[in-house]
Amino acid sequence: MELFKKETLESFCSAVYQAAGVLKERADVLAASMVHGSLRGVESHGVSRTGIYLKRITSGMVRPNAALKIERGGRSGAVMDAGNTIGQFAASEASKLAAELAEENGIGCVGVRGSNHFGAASFYTLPLAQKGCIALAMSNAPTTMALWGAGKPYTGTNPLSYAIPAGKYEPLVLDMATSIVARGKIRRAWKKGEKIPPDWAIDKDGNPTEDPEQALEGYVLPFGGPKGSAIALFIEAMAGVLTGAAFGPSLGSMYNDFDREQNLGHFFIAAAPGVLAPGLDFGKRMEAMVAEIKALPPSGGNEKVFLPGEIEAMTEKDRTENGIPLEEDVVKELQELGAAYGLSFPG
Amino acid sequence: MELFKKETLESFCSAVYQAAGVLKERADVLAASMVHGSLRGVESHGVSRTGIYLKRITSGMVRPNAALKIERGGRSGAVMDAGNTIGQFAASEASKLAAELAEENGIGCVGVRGSNHFGAASFYTLPLAQKGCIALAMSNAPTTMALWGAGKPYTGTNPLSYAIPAGKYEPLVLDMATSIVARGKIRRAWKKGEKIPPDWAIDKDGNPTEDPEQALEGYVLPFGGPKGSAIALFIEAMAGVLTGAAFGPSLGSMYNDFDREQNLGHFFIAAAPGVLAPGLDFGKRMEAMVAEIKALPPSGGNEKVFLPGEIEAMTEKDRTENGIPLEEDVVKELQELGAAYGLSFPG
Ligand SMILES: NC(=O)c1ccc[n+]([C@@H]2O[C@H](COP(=O)([O-])OP(=O)(O)OC[C@H]3O[C@@H](n4cnc5c(N)ncnc54)[C@H](O)[C@@H]3O)[C@@H](O)[C@H]2O)c1
Ligand SMILES: NC(=O)c1ccc[n+]([C@@H]2O[C@H](COP(=O)([O-])OP(=O)(O)OC[C@H]3O[C@@H](n4cnc5c(N)ncnc54)[C@H](O)[C@@H]3O)[C@@H](O)[C@H]2O)c1
Repeated sequence: MELFKKETLESFCSAVYQAAGVLKERADVLAASMVHGSLRGVESHGVSRTGIYLKRITSGMVRPNAALKIERGGRSGAVMDAGNTIGQFAASEASKLAAELAEENGIGCVGVRGSNHFGAASFYTLPLAQKGCIALAMSNAPTTMALWGAGKPYTGTNPLSYAIPAGKYEPLVLDMATSIVARGKIRRAWKKGEKIPPDWAIDKDGNPTEDPEQALEGYVLPFGGPKGSAIALFIEAMAGVLTGAAFGPSLGSMYNDFDREQNLGHFFIAAAPGVLAPGLDFGKRMEAMVAEIKALPPSGGNEKVFLPGEIEAMTEKDRTENGIPLEEDVVKELQELGAAYGLSFPG
Repeated sequence: MELFKKETLESFCSAVYQAAGVLKERADVLAASMVHGSLRGVESHGVSRTGIYLKRITSGMVRPNAALKIERGGRSGAVMDAGNTIGQFAASEASKLAAELAEENGIGCVGVRGSNHFGAASFYTLPLAQKGCIALAMSNAPTTMALWGAGKPYTGTNPLSYAIPAGKYEPLVLDMATSIVARGKIRRAWKKGEKIPPDWAIDKDGNPTEDPEQALEGYVLPFGGPKGSAIALFIEAMAGVLTGAAFGPSLGSMYNDFDREQNLGHFFIAAAPGVLAPGLDFGKRMEAMVAEIKALPPSGGNEKVFLPGEIEAMTEKDRTENGIPLEEDVVKELQELGAAYGLSFPG
């Protein structure tokens, strides 16, 4: 596979969106979010999404340059109406505001409505942890997942991320779909012509399936049985119900609905350890915890114990130095998308 | 099985603790917490715990009447030093303070250190939801669970609960161990001489086991693989590291360590929908979501779709009306514990 520099991909993707009329600041954020996915090995939320985001913008389903409206909700909270702008831009602004509120008050939260797909959730939490905040990000997503015990879908694969500063170590980063796997992984298996494990999804009649095509027509299943299902529902309540966004089957689909906006919702919580517990050195205490975990023996079959986000951080380090591998079909798509605006890839 | 009235159990258990020198207010909270578990069918965290809590108090390992010290950490946060008092009392006060901070500022959080076992986590979230707040409760717990990929345990079965008000419906209540099952359930299987499923736990050498005794000597496994494992670790960071409590293997064991205190930590977050998004009727919107979910067809084999906490709420309704069934050995233990203080059970 051909390798591409982080900077090359960032500036190319941003240039495409700018050529399509997106303000530079917002195009840069959207490009950086996709490259964050590609860098960290989350291919399903990487630059392979360039086309679908562009299609929603050029078809008028996303209003990229719409103004954000922010209403404060108490000293520590706010709700943003994203005005149907790019999800990554709204989410980036909202998460930074949550961190500001946390630095002022100990903890802060910002909900977002009227938004669009925000990509990989760790794009919002990791930078806050790098500045010393504990951060949580969540989003609802178009209906694709069957709640525990249900034969029809209700929520999406509602992503959840946290990032926790860990002193001299990399922040701990959980970034997950609340489904057993993200739909993007099923889509990639389908593109590659591969089978999927039987507990990933059910078909549209409610039966288990190993065929990614049938799974994509059907519904993914929550991680961790009734417990994970309840966590997906919590995200739906926070990101969808509380913010005033759409929720459940009323959400628009990014891939299928080109007659209406998505009206997705997100929710961000940040906590500032230095404000909440000023007498303690949170970073040093986290270092002690990380050191203890790194010293644990692996269980049978595993070579080592990985912390949340550790594998992705290793991939990011490698790809920052050596370049990001892109599959042929992704390269071809980027070339075509660029060509339509007279931009050559790699440029 | 003999049936007992909620009120009978509450007043008996409180009387036992008062006889052991616990202040009435605190004895009442501890008793109410255990009866909450028994009422909702969470036998593992019900009145069957009366003896072990008492043993820690009478052996001087818990200082039931210690003063709580609260330090504010920003306008929306606080950290409480529980002074090694009863976990349920400290947690109850801390969760109420989190709700007050949320009502003032939109969102609020309170961490607790120097605490003890706090029982069923929904005892703290459900009352806040009944007053209109969205509530989260979490606690660390003595080392019994192996993180994903590890051959030795690090965290406990770190409980997590949320409660979300749902208008005219019962609040949605998740109340879970972050292990596939709570250790209490393995302990009950052991008491009953029953086998356990093979994915519940590993033995002390890291091998799967169906023997509850070997499982109790070994370690339980996280729910949902690496995702659930990362959630257990988040709780350890918030409840343990951030608050100044002990964490990981430094925590004392309730059952085994009678030479030191537990120094457990808890963490509570509350959010006030009416403050965060005053223009929306959160309760009505949640009603719409609940109605949509209740209308979903069940998947093959299930008679209906249950919301988080719905089964427990049904049990609570039934047992409030008809009484709480207690097994013979639990009744016998309560009789013996009471007799030591000249209290007869049922009294
Ligand atoms: N915006 C949306 O609508 C949406 C929806 C779903 C998912 N997503 C994104 O999809 C991406 C992929 O999600 P996923 O659930 O497929 O991720 P995944 O299953 O690959 O990883 C989930 C988490 O588990 C951790 N992990 C994995 N293996 C581990 C191991 N051996 N030891 C320790 N930790 C380990 C990872 O660090 C990660 O934090 C995420 O970036 C998510 O935000 C977005
Ligand atoms: N204090 C501590 O140290 C500690 C540690 C671990 C657990 N606990 C407590 O143990 C108790 C039991 O935990 P658990 O994990 O064994 O509980 P569980 O597995 O019985 O239930 C977990 C959750 O899943 C939901 N649920 C179960 N079946 C469902 C279905 N069919 N449909 C929809 N939802 C369903 C329940 O409502 C509950 O909220 C909890 O009260 C917890 O707080 C406490």
